[in-house]
Amino acid sequence: MARIQDIADKLNVTKSTVSKAMNGADDISEAMRKKVLETAIELGYTKKRGKDTQKKKLVILIRQMTYKKPSEFGYYLVLGFRQMAEQADFQVDIREVSEEMMKASSYDVYMLEHNYLGSFVVGFSLNDKWISEFKTSSIPAVLYDNETKGNLKATYIGVDSVEGMDFAIAHLKELGHTKIAYMGGLLGSFYAKERYRAFKSALKKHKLHQDKELYGEAYYISECVMLHLERILNLGATAIICGHDLLAQAVIAQCREMGKRVPEKISCIGFDDLPMSEKMQPPLTTIRQDRAELGKSAFYALTSLLNEVPIGTLLLHAKLMVRESTGPVYKG
Amino acid sequence: MARIQDIADKLNVTKSTVSKAMNGADDISEAMRKKVLETAIELGYTKKRGKDTQKKKLVILIRQMTYKKPSEFGYYLVLGFRQMAEQADFQVDIREVSEEMMKASSYDVYMLEHNYLGSFVVGFSLNDKWISEFKTSSIPAVLYDNETKGNLKATYIGVDSVEGMDFAIAHLKELGHTKIAYMGGLLGSFYAKERYRAFKSALKKHKLHQDKELYGEAYYISECVMLHLERILNLGATAIICGHDLLAQAVIAQCREMGKRVPEKISCIGFDDLPMSEKMQPPLTTIRQDRAELGKSAFYALTSLLNEVPIGTLLLHAKLMVRESTGPVYKG
Repeated sequence: MARIQDIADKLNVTKSTVSKAMNGADDISEAMRKKVLETAIELGYTKKRGKDTQKKKLVILIRQMTYKKPSEFGYYLVLGFRQMAEQADFQVDIREVSEEMMKASSYDVYMLEHNYLGSFVVGFSLNDKWISEFKTSSIPAVLYDNETKGNLKATYIGVDSVEGMDFAIAHLKELGHTKIAYMGGLLGSFYAKERYRAFKSALKKHKLHQDKELYGEAYYISECVMLHLERILNLGATAIICGHDLLAQAVIAQCREMGKRVPEKISCIGFDDLPMSEKMQPPLTTIRQDRAELGKSAFYALTSLLNEVPIGTLLLHAKLMVRESTGPVYKG
Repeated sequence: MARIQDIADKLNVTKSTVSKAMNGADDISEAMRKKVLETAIELGYTKKRGKDTQKKKLVILIRQMTYKKPSEFGYYLVLGFRQMAEQADFQVDIREVSEEMMKASSYDVYMLEHNYLGSFVVGFSLNDKWISEFKTSSIPAVLYDNETKGNLKATYIGVDSVEGMDFAIAHLKELGHTKIAYMGGLLGSFYAKERYRAFKSALKKHKLHQDKELYGEAYYISECVMLHLERILNLGATAIICGHDLLAQAVIAQCREMGKRVPEKISCIGFDDLPMSEKMQPPLTTIRQDRAELGKSAFYALTSLLNEVPIGTLLLHAKLMVRESTGPVYKG
């Protein structure tokens, strides 16, 4: 078993520095304290770490997402993060980010001014000004559904869409479906691309042919439905996977109007599992994004960045919620 | 600000249950304690959590990897994990897993017998018996460089090879290289496939042609070099990326024997950044896997699984260590 002296020798510091670091004294830098503790563990010394007295501040930066009520998309995302962070004794501020704020100051300046150690970034789109700044900033940031390649201080978190689409296609295949269409409604965003790519790779994995005509995409939900649904149905698709739940809702309504009841004549699967999706008529089969779990894992990732462990990507396991919008293939 | 009564009301339990949970009383289940604490935070109550008194046990399961000295691959993987886990007050056991152990009992039985809450799994190959058991077990497991799709209680951790290969190809392209070969020496393993796939996608991203003749793969390093190196050089490759550092070392030695000095006539990049790689002649340019960081992030992932947050994939940012085995393209 190691003594204080062994730690001091290894780090080439005095015994008093080691003791102070172990007791969390103010005149020892955080870096030295960490080094001492890690060396203590490496050498088999078992004294516990001292307590920090001051609260450290993190911020959740919200761009375009509602989060104030449990029925809103961002509510559990924010809550999950706070539950982890506040138990770990961080203070968490929540800031809605406007275009003006992004114009008025850079991300780095904003963070330094407010003394924030790190951020959890949600609801930003690819053309928001700060998005490019997250890619080069040295202040730890965890981005929900936005990529962060190349920046050691940024993590991308999300749900594993490859796994989710795999479950969805496996489920449909088991029900006898082979002509499966895809409709995406979020043209140009990072996750829209990811989900469509995942759909194609799942078709391939399950040895189903991908017919490029069985694909539709548009920014507005109504436009997406009007432009593509009739063609897709005429081509004989028996199931449609939608890029998000709101689009699935619109597709189901339109199918009904065209005399194609879901799931009797056509099956439909969404993505997200919004709070309203299990109450839809019929209740929607969908790939779930668990927001509380995403919020919690965002905190894990941020803690890890703060500890100099450069997590680049963190994906939660996907879950397929099988409800009533999918059924056996229709044999007319 | 919420009172004890509010928490009790929301959870439909007595005030005494809430107080006991907050103080970490023994007759309150962990699940209830967690629920109470999370609800307290949701409602804005700020009392701190009580302390656990008993040490919880985790295990590092090591199959085929050396780890006892700092110069060995697994040393910092194990140490990084222990540094995080022991600071968080877990006991960490290290167990070398033999074929006999895997025959003698199933993974689940082994874990339950030893009272382990979760495992960090390193050095297993795809045909080890327990590998299939990790995919269905409900005991949290974090697997280094092995996939875990479909099991909510398992996480795959590794370094982002797509990002790493992107850096490597960008570096070579900047030096003027366009004919870049790939040699892989780990036929059939999960990460060998990942790295080769990443190489191809990086070529595509940088708009370089992929010549399938500029590719070699074999289980044994010497075989890989003998079978493929001469052809690759004759076809005019000016740079070779190797699937791991030991292979790069063999390739460089063989190139030298054939009169092709590295980096003057041919550039060479490895993968791993083994302790010996910076001491090679010439010091090797390579994609780094930081073992201490991997070990630490394995602990983050395991903590997260223990807290019911199902992280599926956790990738560390890659780093390219530019040393002296790469240089400007040779113009004969």
